[in-house]
Amino acid sequence: MIALDFTQAPPPALVDPIVRRALEEDIGGGDITSALTIAADARASARLVARKPGTIAGLVAAEAAFRLLDASLRFEVATPDGGKAAAGDLLASISGNTRAILAGERVALNFLGHLSGVATATAALVEAVAGTRARISCTRKTLPGLRLLEKYAVRCGGGVNHRFGLYDAVLIKDNHVAAAGGIAQALKRARAGFGGKIEIEVDDLGQLEEALAGGADIVLLDNMNLDQMRSAVALTAGRAVLEASGNVTLATVRGIAETGVDVISSGALTHSAMNLDIGLDF
Amino acid sequence: MIALDFTQAPPPALVDPIVRRALEEDIGGGDITSALTIAADARASARLVARKPGTIAGLVAAEAAFRLLDASLRFEVATPDGGKAAAGDLLASISGNTRAILAGERVALNFLGHLSGVATATAALVEAVAGTRARISCTRKTLPGLRLLEKYAVRCGGGVNHRFGLYDAVLIKDNHVAAAGGIAQALKRARAGFGGKIEIEVDDLGQLEEALAGGADIVLLDNMNLDQMRSAVALTAGRAVLEASGNVTLATVRGIAETGVDVISSGALTHSAMNLDIGLDF
Amino acid sequence: MIALDFTQAPPPALVDPIVRRALEEDIGGGDITSALTIAADARASARLVARKPGTIAGLVAAEAAFRLLDASLRFEVATPDGGKAAAGDLLASISGNTRAILAGERVALNFLGHLSGVATATAALVEAVAGTRARISCTRKTLPGLRLLEKYAVRCGGGVNHRFGLYDAVLIKDNHVAAAGGIAQALKRARAGFGGKIEIEVDDLGQLEEALAGGADIVLLDNMNLDQMRSAVALTAGRAVLEASGNVTLATVRGIAETGVDVISSGALTHSAMNLDIGLDF
Amino acid sequence: MIALDFTQAPPPALVDPIVRRALEEDIGGGDITSALTIAADARASARLVARKPGTIAGLVAAEAAFRLLDASLRFEVATPDGGKAAAGDLLASISGNTRAILAGERVALNFLGHLSGVATATAALVEAVAGTRARISCTRKTLPGLRLLEKYAVRCGGGVNHRFGLYDAVLIKDNHVAAAGGIAQALKRARAGFGGKIEIEVDDLGQLEEALAGGADIVLLDNMNLDQMRSAVALTAGRAVLEASGNVTLATVRGIAETGVDVISSGALTHSAMNLDIGLDF
Amino acid sequence: MIALDFTQAPPPALVDPIVRRALEEDIGGGDITSALTIAADARASARLVARKPGTIAGLVAAEAAFRLLDASLRFEVATPDGGKAAAGDLLASISGNTRAILAGERVALNFLGHLSGVATATAALVEAVAGTRARISCTRKTLPGLRLLEKYAVRCGGGVNHRFGLYDAVLIKDNHVAAAGGIAQALKRARAGFGGKIEIEVDDLGQLEEALAGGADIVLLDNMNLDQMRSAVALTAGRAVLEASGNVTLATVRGIAETGVDVISSGALTHSAMNLDIGLDF
Amino acid sequence: MIALDFTQAPPPALVDPIVRRALEEDIGGGDITSALTIAADARASARLVARKPGTIAGLVAAEAAFRLLDASLRFEVATPDGGKAAAGDLLASISGNTRAILAGERVALNFLGHLSGVATATAALVEAVAGTRARISCTRKTLPGLRLLEKYAVRCGGGVNHRFGLYDAVLIKDNHVAAAGGIAQALKRARAGFGGKIEIEVDDLGQLEEALAGGADIVLLDNMNLDQMRSAVALTAGRAVLEASGNVTLATVRGIAETGVDVISSGALTHSAMNLDIGLDF
Repeated sequence: MIALDFTQAPPPALVDPIVRRALEEDIGGGDITSALTIAADARASARLVARKPGTIAGLVAAEAAFRLLDASLRFEVATPDGGKAAAGDLLASISGNTRAILAGERVALNFLGHLSGVATATAALVEAVAGTRARISCTRKTLPGLRLLEKYAVRCGGGVNHRFGLYDAVLIKDNHVAAAGGIAQALKRARAGFGGKIEIEVDDLGQLEEALAGGADIVLLDNMNLDQMRSAVALTAGRAVLEASGNVTLATVRGIAETGVDVISSGALTHSAMNLDIGLDF
Repeated sequence: MIALDFTQAPPPALVDPIVRRALEEDIGGGDITSALTIAADARASARLVARKPGTIAGLVAAEAAFRLLDASLRFEVATPDGGKAAAGDLLASISGNTRAILAGERVALNFLGHLSGVATATAALVEAVAGTRARISCTRKTLPGLRLLEKYAVRCGGGVNHRFGLYDAVLIKDNHVAAAGGIAQALKRARAGFGGKIEIEVDDLGQLEEALAGGADIVLLDNMNLDQMRSAVALTAGRAVLEASGNVTLATVRGIAETGVDVISSGALTHSAMNLDIGLDF
Repeated sequence: MIALDFTQAPPPALVDPIVRRALEEDIGGGDITSALTIAADARASARLVARKPGTIAGLVAAEAAFRLLDASLRFEVATPDGGKAAAGDLLASISGNTRAILAGERVALNFLGHLSGVATATAALVEAVAGTRARISCTRKTLPGLRLLEKYAVRCGGGVNHRFGLYDAVLIKDNHVAAAGGIAQALKRARAGFGGKIEIEVDDLGQLEEALAGGADIVLLDNMNLDQMRSAVALTAGRAVLEASGNVTLATVRGIAETGVDVISSGALTHSAMNLDIGLDF
Repeated sequence: MIALDFTQAPPPALVDPIVRRALEEDIGGGDITSALTIAADARASARLVARKPGTIAGLVAAEAAFRLLDASLRFEVATPDGGKAAAGDLLASISGNTRAILAGERVALNFLGHLSGVATATAALVEAVAGTRARISCTRKTLPGLRLLEKYAVRCGGGVNHRFGLYDAVLIKDNHVAAAGGIAQALKRARAGFGGKIEIEVDDLGQLEEALAGGADIVLLDNMNLDQMRSAVALTAGRAVLEASGNVTLATVRGIAETGVDVISSGALTHSAMNLDIGLDF
Repeated sequence: MIALDFTQAPPPALVDPIVRRALEEDIGGGDITSALTIAADARASARLVARKPGTIAGLVAAEAAFRLLDASLRFEVATPDGGKAAAGDLLASISGNTRAILAGERVALNFLGHLSGVATATAALVEAVAGTRARISCTRKTLPGLRLLEKYAVRCGGGVNHRFGLYDAVLIKDNHVAAAGGIAQALKRARAGFGGKIEIEVDDLGQLEEALAGGADIVLLDNMNLDQMRSAVALTAGRAVLEASGNVTLATVRGIAETGVDVISSGALTHSAMNLDIGLDF
Repeated sequence: MIALDFTQAPPPALVDPIVRRALEEDIGGGDITSALTIAADARASARLVARKPGTIAGLVAAEAAFRLLDASLRFEVATPDGGKAAAGDLLASISGNTRAILAGERVALNFLGHLSGVATATAALVEAVAGTRARISCTRKTLPGLRLLEKYAVRCGGGVNHRFGLYDAVLIKDNHVAAAGGIAQALKRARAGFGGKIEIEVDDLGQLEEALAGGADIVLLDNMNLDQMRSAVALTAGRAVLEASGNVTLATVRGIAETGVDVISSGALTHSAMNLDIGLDF
C-alpha cells in the first residue's frame, strides 16, 4: 500500500492526547521562571517565525499546545501546514496571557521544528526527483509515539506514505521468505490471505524474477546499485511497482529516480530528520 | 540546574507506557505478513547488532517492547546502555516465538536507533572536548513524548542533563528580563522565590556584567563568538558557571570548550539526532 | 483492502488495556458478595464450558482478565480460539483463589460470549457459502472500543477482514462521488494518491460500468438483488473484485454467493452478533 | 439494588474518553478517501435519520464524536435520547466541514445504532409487559467498555438497571451458597456486612423458602418455568421482590410477567442487541 | 446502601494504575541522589516498620510500588492490611536492588502512611463505640483519585462503607427535597425509580416524622444534638436505620453511639486523616 | 532546590485529567438521586462559601469539575486561590443546570476542602514565623496523585516548595551516606554529577561540620532540638542554608524559626492536612 498521498491533518481528537503528554513532560509543577518574573495578568502578542527556509508542518500541534494551556489564547495561522516559508516568514501569531504563551512556547516549537524538519527533508527529495516518475515515501522507521504526525509531515512535504503499521499492508522480507520456504511460496501464502497489493523485498535480479513470477504487486529493491535498479526496471517492464530503498540521500536520489523506479523510500526522513529552526518572537 | 550526570535507567513503571503506545501505533490489528507466512509456533533466535559504531542507549525500551508482546521471550543484554559498540557488535539476543520477535522488531529498533543516535552524537562531542573543563549538555529541545528517554540517552553518551522542564530550574531569558524591567530586577525577583541556582541568558558582555553583579549562578552565553566567550570567561573569573549555546557542532565544539566555558549545550543532540544503524539478525 | 485472512491473536500489549477497562467497570470498589460469603484464602478449580455449540474466540481476553486480577491463577486452554466447540465442551480451566476467579468470571464471559458470538455467526456464513468463491467479510460497523478483538473474532470464524479503519484503504461512497463530480473523477483522484487497491460503491450496473472503465480494483455492489449481482459478475468478467453488501443473512447468503461475487460483507456479524452461551462451572 | 429507573445521560466528562478511543480506532492515520476526493474546505449539512422504527439512545455519544473531531460543527438534536422514531424520522442534523462530518459518521453511527438497538429491544419488552407489575431490567452481561452507555440505553428504552457492577449490590449465587455452607448461612453473612437490599439466586421452591426464611429482600428465580414462578409468587406473598431470569424473549416475556413477578431481567438486552438501522443522509 | 463491611483488597488491575501515576509523579527523570551515591548493583534488605501504633492499610499499594519499579524485588508481608501494629512492629520486608528500594520508598510510604492513618482513625472510633449498636462509616468526602483505597482502608479499620458514589445509592438532601416539593414527594419519586434502600437527610424531628411516614429506609440525622438524636431513636422505634452525622470526634462519638443510632458517619475519616508514621529501615 | 516561591496555577492541560478521574470515581453510572428528584431542565444558582476561615486553594480544580460536566455552566470566582476567606465569605458562584451543579458539587468540594486545608495549614505556620528569616516548606510526603495540586496549595498559603520529586534535586540521606562511605564521599560524588545546590541530611553537629567541610549548599537538620539548632546556626555562620525538619507544629514552629534556620519543612502540611470546611449553598 505504498503511496498514500493526501494532506488532511489529523483531528484534535487524535492530536490533543499527544500534545497533552508533551505538556505534562515540560510543565510539571509549573513554569517557575515566568511565575517569578512576569505578572500573572500580563498580555502579549508573539509570532512564530521561520529562521531558516523550509516546508511547514505541525501547526495543528502548536495550536493544540496553546489551546490546551489557555483556551482564551488567539492563534492565527499565516503559513499553513504544507506551505513553504522563507527565512523570516510569519507562520502564525499568538496573543493573550504572556505566561501561557511562554509556557507553551517550547512544546509548540518542539513539534513544529521536528515536523517541519521532516516536511522540509521530504520536500528536498521531492524536488530533487522532479520530472521523474518517482514518488518519495517514508517508512515505519518513525520516532515512537509520533508516527501519526510524522506521516502527516511527510505528506505536507509532498511525499507519500508507505504502510502505517504491520496491520495495513503485506511486506514480505527475508525472514518471511525463509520461513515460508521461498519467494514463490511466501507470495502464494500471502495472496491466499490478503486482498490488497502485496509487496516483497528482493536483493538481486534473480529474486526479482521469482517475485514477478509469483505475482508480486510491489517489489522493494533493497540496497541495489544503480545498474541493478536499471536492470530491474527493464526486467519488470511495468509488471509491478518498484520501490527503491537504501542509501537514499539528497546526493543520490536523482540518480535513483532516473533508473525509472516508481517509489523511493527513506527511513531517514523520519528517524534522522534535522529540526527546522523556528522561533517565537515577542 | 545544569549538569545532572548519572546513568540510572528509568524503571519499567515509566518506560512501559511509552513503549506500549509505540506498539499500539505499529501493530494495530496485527502483523499480517508474519501471520500469513510464518507458523504460529515457530521459534527463533535473533541478535540485535550494531551496523555502525556508536554508543548504545535504549535497551531498556527494546527489552520492554519484546516483553510486552510476549512475556516468555528471552532477552539478554550483551552491550549495556552506555557501552560503545563497533560495527558488528552484538547488543542483545532474543529468543522465543518467531512472530513475537518480528512483531517487536521495528518498535525496538526505532527506540534503539534513535536513542543510540542521541548517545552517539553526545559521545562525539564529549570526546571532542576531552581534556577541557567543558561538559556537554542537552536542552529542553527534545522530541515530544521522548524527553525522559532522550535525557537518559544523553547521559549514556557521557553528557549531562540541563533542566528537565519548566518546573525544575530557573532560566531567565530575554522575555523575562523585558517583563521584569531589566537583568538586575529579574534576578532579584527570581532569587526571592527560588532557592536553587539561577541561570540567566545574556547576549553580550555588558549583560554578562549585569548578570554577575546581580548574582547569577549560571550564565548562558547565547550565540557568542569565540572572542566574546573568552572575554566572558576572563570577566567572570569563576564567579558563575558559564554555559555556551548556539552553533555547537563537532567542528566548533573544541574551540568553544577551549575558551574555558563550563558547559556547552546543544539542542541538536536531541532534536536533530541521526539514527544509529542497528539491525536485528536472525 | 478486502480479505485479510490470518489468525494471529493480538498480543497482551494491546489486549490488556481493553481488559483492564472492563475490569474497572465491573469491580469498582470490590466484589461485595464474594467478600462476605467466601473465605479470603479459599481455592477452587473452574471450567469455562460451552453451553451451546459454536466457534470460540476471546480466550486471549479471558486469560488477561484472570491474570490481571491475580497473577497466580492458572489458566489452561483446552479449545483454542478458532476451534469449534460442541455444547458441553471444555474451553479452558482456571484454578487458584476462589474470590479472584469469581471476580473475573463476568468480564471473562462478557468477552468470550460476545467474541465467540461473532466467530460463530461468521462461521455459519462461511459454511453456508462453502464451495463457492465467496469470502465472508466484516465491515467497520463494529462496537466502539472492540474493533481489534471483533476483527480477530471474525478471522477465528473463518471470515476475512475488510479495512480496519478510514486510514488503511480507499472506499469511495456516494458522497465522495458527488463531491468529486462523478465516478470517473473520483477514481482518478483516488488513484493519483493511493497506491493500494481502490474500492468504489455502486448502486446499479450503469455505475458499475463507469467504475470498471475508471479502473476500480474492487466494486461494492450495494443492496443489489440477485439478478443484478449475476449481471454484475458477467459484466465485470474478472476485471475487478466484486463485494456484495446489504441484506446478508444465513437465509440469503448462499444465493448471493452463487451469483459469483468474490466477497460478501456483513455489518451484522459485529454490530448485531448474538452472544454465544458460555458458562463457568465450579 | 434492582430497578434504577432514571433517564439522566452521562456527562461529557465520562462519555468523551469512550468516544475518543472509538475515534482513534477508526481514524488512525486519517480518512484517506475523503482527503483524496473532497475539498478541504467543503461544507455540508447532513441528517441522522432512522431507517427502521425504534427507540433512540446514544445521541450524547454521536454529538461527542463530531465535537471531538471538529469543535465548529453544529449538532442539533431533533429526536432526543429516549424518544421513539418512525422509519424516516430525523434524529439530529449536523452541519459544517464535509470531511469532518464524514470522518465522524461511522463512529457516531456505531454508537447510535448499538445503543438504540439496546433501547429498542428494551422498549419492546417493556411494551409487552404493559399492565403487569413487572419491570424490565438489564444485567451485568454488557459489552466490555460500554456498560455505562448500555445501562443508559436500557433506561432510555423504559427499562431499569440492575446493579452496575460487583461493587454496588449483593447477589448471592450458587457458588456463594456452597462456600458459605447453605442459603441461611450465606444470607446471614451478607446481612452482617451489607446494609442494602440482599438478593439471592434460587433454582427451586425449596430454596425459595429457605431464602425467604433467611430474610432475602430480592430473590432471583433462575430458569424456572411458569408454573414454578406462579408458585413462587404465591409462596412469597409479597415478602420479597421476585426477579425472573432465563429464557426471556419477546415471545415469553408476557407470560413471565403475568406470573406476578416484579422484575424480569435479560442479559440479551445488552449482550445480543440487534443494531437499529440509522443512516446519515447528506 | 450504608454499611458495606468486607475486607477484600482491590486487585492489582485496579491498584496498579493508581500506583503507577504516583511513581510517575515522584520519579520523573530519575532518582538523582541514589544514582550519584549508590552503586547500580548494590543490594539491600529493608523493613517497613511502624513508628507509632496503629491499624495498617495499604500494603497492597506499597507492594505494587516496589513491583512496578523492579519485578525482581522480594516483598514479604508481616502485618497484613487490617492488622494492628505496635510502635516498632515489622509490617513488611523488601530485599533486592538498593536503588530500586530507595526509588519506591517514598511512594510506598505515602500510600501506607495515609491509608493506615485512615484505618487507624477508623479503628479508634470503632473501639470507642464498642458495645453499642453503632457502626462507623465513611462518606463520599474522600481525597480525589483515592476513593477506592480510602474506602478499603476504612474497612481495614473495622468501619463500614457508605455509598461509593452518586451511582450506587439514593441519598436525598435538602436541595432534592426542595426541588421535589417536600419530603413526601421526594421519597415517592425516589421509591418509584429505585429498588434499593432509600436514605434521606433530616434536620429536625418534624422532618424525621415526615421521612418515616414516607417510608424512608435510612434517615440521616444531620447535625442533631444528643437530645434530638435520642428523641429520634425513640420516635423511629426501629422503623428505619438511623445515621448520625456532624461533629463526630473521638470525644463525641461514644455519646452519639449511646443515643442508639445505627450508623455514625464521618467525612473526617478520609478527608482529614492524620498520616500514620511508618518508616523504611535498612 | 528548596524554596520555590511562586503562585502560578497549573494549567487546564494538567489539571483536567486529575479532575476527570475524580469525576469518574464519583459519578459512575449517574447521579441517581438528582435524576429521580430534580427536573432535567431545572436551573439554579449556587455559591461556594467558606464555613470556617482559611486560605483558599483549588478553585482551578473546582472550576474544571463543573466545566467538564457541563461546559455551559457559569463559574465566577470571588475569592481567588491564595486569598483569605472569613467564615461566610463567597468563594465562587455557579449557575446553570441544577443536576450538573449537584453532580459536580462533591468532587469540587473534595478538591477545594483538601487544598484549602493545605493552604490554611501552611498560612498558619507562615504567620507564626512572621518576622523571622524562616520560610515554610512542604516535602515529598504528599498524597498520591495530588502532588502537583498540593504543592500549588502550599504556595497559595505563602509557603515554598521543596523538590517536586526524586528527579529535580539532590538530597543525601543516611542510606546514601552509608553507601557512599561517609558524608565527605557522598558530597563529593554528588557534586561531581550535579550542578545545582546539594542538600544533605545530618543528625548532629559533628555531621554538620562534615557536611559544611564537604561543601553542602543546604543542610537538613533532622529532628534536632532547639539547642542543637541554635548551635548549628552558629556553627554554620551562613556557609549553607539550614533546613529544620521534625516535630514541626503550630506550637513549636516559632521556636524553631527563632533559632535562625532558613527553612522549616513539614510533611504534615500535605500528608495530614485538615480539610477546610467549605459548602455549596443554593
